[in-house]
Amino acid sequence: MADAVSLITAKRDGRELTDDEIGWLIASYTRGEVADEQMSALAMAIVFRGMTRAETAAWTHAMIRTGRRMDLSALPRPTVDKHSTGGVGDKITLPLAPLVAACGAAVPQLSGRGLGHTGGTLDKLESVPGWRADLAPAEIDAILADPAVGAVVCAAGADLAPADRKLYALRDVTGTVESIPLIASSIMSKKIAEGAGALVLDVKVGSGAFMKNVADARELATTMVELGVDAGVRTVALLTAMDSPLGYTAGNALEVAESVEVLAGGGPADVVELTLTLAREMLCAAGLDGLDPAEALRDGRAMDRWRAMLRAQGGDPTAALPTARERDVVTATESGVLTRLDAMAVGVAASRLGAGRERQGQPVQSGAGVTWHARPGDLVVAGQPLLTLHTDTPARFAAARAALDGAWSVGDTPPEEPLVIDRIGLVQV
Amino acid sequence: MADAVSLITAKRDGRELTDDEIGWLIASYTRGEVADEQMSALAMAIVFRGMTRAETAAWTHAMIRTGRRMDLSALPRPTVDKHSTGGVGDKITLPLAPLVAACGAAVPQLSGRGLGHTGGTLDKLESVPGWRADLAPAEIDAILADPAVGAVVCAAGADLAPADRKLYALRDVTGTVESIPLIASSIMSKKIAEGAGALVLDVKVGSGAFMKNVADARELATTMVELGVDAGVRTVALLTAMDSPLGYTAGNALEVAESVEVLAGGGPADVVELTLTLAREMLCAAGLDGLDPAEALRDGRAMDRWRAMLRAQGGDPTAALPTARERDVVTATESGVLTRLDAMAVGVAASRLGAGRERQGQPVQSGAGVTWHARPGDLVVAGQPLLTLHTDTPARFAAARAALDGAWSVGDTPPEEPLVIDRIGLVQV
Repeated sequence: MADAVSLITAKRDGRELTDDEIGWLIASYTRGEVADEQMSALAMAIVFRGMTRAETAAWTHAMIRTGRRMDLSALPRPTVDKHSTGGVGDKITLPLAPLVAACGAAVPQLSGRGLGHTGGTLDKLESVPGWRADLAPAEIDAILADPAVGAVVCAAGADLAPADRKLYALRDVTGTVESIPLIASSIMSKKIAEGAGALVLDVKVGSGAFMKNVADARELATTMVELGVDAGVRTVALLTAMDSPLGYTAGNALEVAESVEVLAGGGPADVVELTLTLAREMLCAAGLDGLDPAEALRDGRAMDRWRAMLRAQGGDPTAALPTARERDVVTATESGVLTRLDAMAVGVAASRLGAGRERQGQPVQSGAGVTWHARPGDLVVAGQPLLTLHTDTPARFAAARAALDGAWSVGDTPPEEPLVIDRIGLVQV
Repeated sequence: MADAVSLITAKRDGRELTDDEIGWLIASYTRGEVADEQMSALAMAIVFRGMTRAETAAWTHAMIRTGRRMDLSALPRPTVDKHSTGGVGDKITLPLAPLVAACGAAVPQLSGRGLGHTGGTLDKLESVPGWRADLAPAEIDAILADPAVGAVVCAAGADLAPADRKLYALRDVTGTVESIPLIASSIMSKKIAEGAGALVLDVKVGSGAFMKNVADARELATTMVELGVDAGVRTVALLTAMDSPLGYTAGNALEVAESVEVLAGGGPADVVELTLTLAREMLCAAGLDGLDPAEALRDGRAMDRWRAMLRAQGGDPTAALPTARERDVVTATESGVLTRLDAMAVGVAASRLGAGRERQGQPVQSGAGVTWHARPGDLVVAGQPLLTLHTDTPARFAAARAALDGAWSVGDTPPEEPLVIDRIGLVQV
């Protein structure tokens, strides 16, 4: 086998790496035989040179092979998972997982924690008293097999694609995160290893998303769909708007409360729309497309599943959610139509208030975050509250307000902002 | 000061780094506060993005500031140094340093060891019994000040541009050697720190050189000349041919013997020509251009300096040079004009015979190497010896012969191969 330097220079000079070369690189890096400084140089070469479809697939499968691959084939129901590339106020997993389970699919939703301006699903659910994110493999299997639950949201085990964990930590400190094939293989290595039969990807596009423009988002979505389909997972991707935050809340307990509104048949229109759109895609991909998820929201079946799902992981769905000790209100300075509310600014403000973290491992505040009283298209009145900031540590208000400086615009005409921008799938609905 | 990740991403995205940013990066890396994996990712970004003249100068001076800068200004004679980017059979430093000293300049020639297919000047001189490469700063000063010597060839101290030493070792294992601004700053940081008032660069071009084409060589030469001139060093560069090896020998003691022939007034025409051309450039750069170095070769003054120079470093110029225990002769298979003898192949063969090393720190054989009995343009006769291989370890003959497979061509017309291709200097001769 070639040495690491010759493979780095090959990629640097534009040569396609073979399956064997990539397999050797990933396995050797995971064992510590290819050094961090070699892998970071290779990652930077990949940022510039990209990877072909074959290279990206080889990279993804090499990462999967460094760990355990879950086998959900013994479950009596079809399995389907959803992954979002991360947005502000993106609480969709919370109503979606129980909703899809209520419609007959098993939903293994291995999730992450928040970092930077986006919140993490596990952080949100941990605001439910008693709920725990860390489950043993046997617990996951048991919850998925339980016909009264069938949905599990938990932390991905360290044994799923450990190469990805090591490589992501390296990319994070070496300026090599921004590579579409590396992002795609990072996401898909874990998702394929999870063993679900179908997967729906929610690729966010806009100022509050990692992908700032539709072309990049479409390339990422296409790369991930190809990886999924090539690995035998029925995969489809939606490109959805992330210029404005979703719903009216960003923060852990705040988003749980908003999700419960959706499960109760109410909630913000955009959250409901995206939840139902993704639910239909998931059910279709799972082969259950005769069912209408809107019905399961209306008749309370989704809410029942939500409660069962929380209880299965130690959570108490009847307990009051935590609230922040302090609030600060930001008022509108003009009257008119809200034409813009910047998702990135809201996300940064929520994180600074304590809802998120700057570094892995930092604690978060359950009650902290931002609520907004108007979405783009709504009328606002000068002097009336526009946003409320929530935190246990009022010293943070100033930094949050600074993040929100210039974060909204008021005008005459409601903005044209479709929620679902495109759909990329090799399976036609 | 910005953090390492933001500087890596800035360079990755094509932004010019400031002097302060580069100074912080190099100083922090040398202290171990910027990690190897960050510096290698940055180096790869530089391979793709390049550096501006200002960035390259900042990078070079930041590396110089991590160590000691020698001060030769107290010497009563002008100081001038020569640096070659490395070729096969390139023994020019050996006759050149004493020749230029004999003409009245002080020549501080801090040199390196061989790696890969090129030999190192220190390895060559160490084949002289008793000669030692490692001198204390006070010894260097004393030899340069001695009017009967005035030339010193020795190892660069670890305190000259230590950042470069650390960075070069990193680049060597991360596929990031091939960047003209990084190569130029690596060479020039040491050369400027050496403190010579003038510098002549011999930038090799061709199959046996690091720079394979004239455009790259010219860019490297121009970058180095700019760095030297900007630092107050009178700097000029020659681009010289390295498709064929220089002279008739590649190997440590073999090249010393050939150099002694030149100092005795004989020797191969190309070695004599290049020695005199570089000597004239050095004397001109040192402000001593009224002198004819050919005269100093003819009348024995250069040979006297050579002997004094060896003795000043413990060497015995009267001792017999080591020879290899075993020889193997490669014969010509056709008759005609030798039209090509590939420098890279000869260099690799010499290294495999024991004259060079694959990794830093490996020992070399003094007597090992290759001699060739014809140069491009000479007539060869089928069945007559074309090359002789020399080694103490005959098991190596097969690998050396393999390297030489296809390394020469025989035809009708002597090749047109000018030795000096171009001259790049801001000082006109």
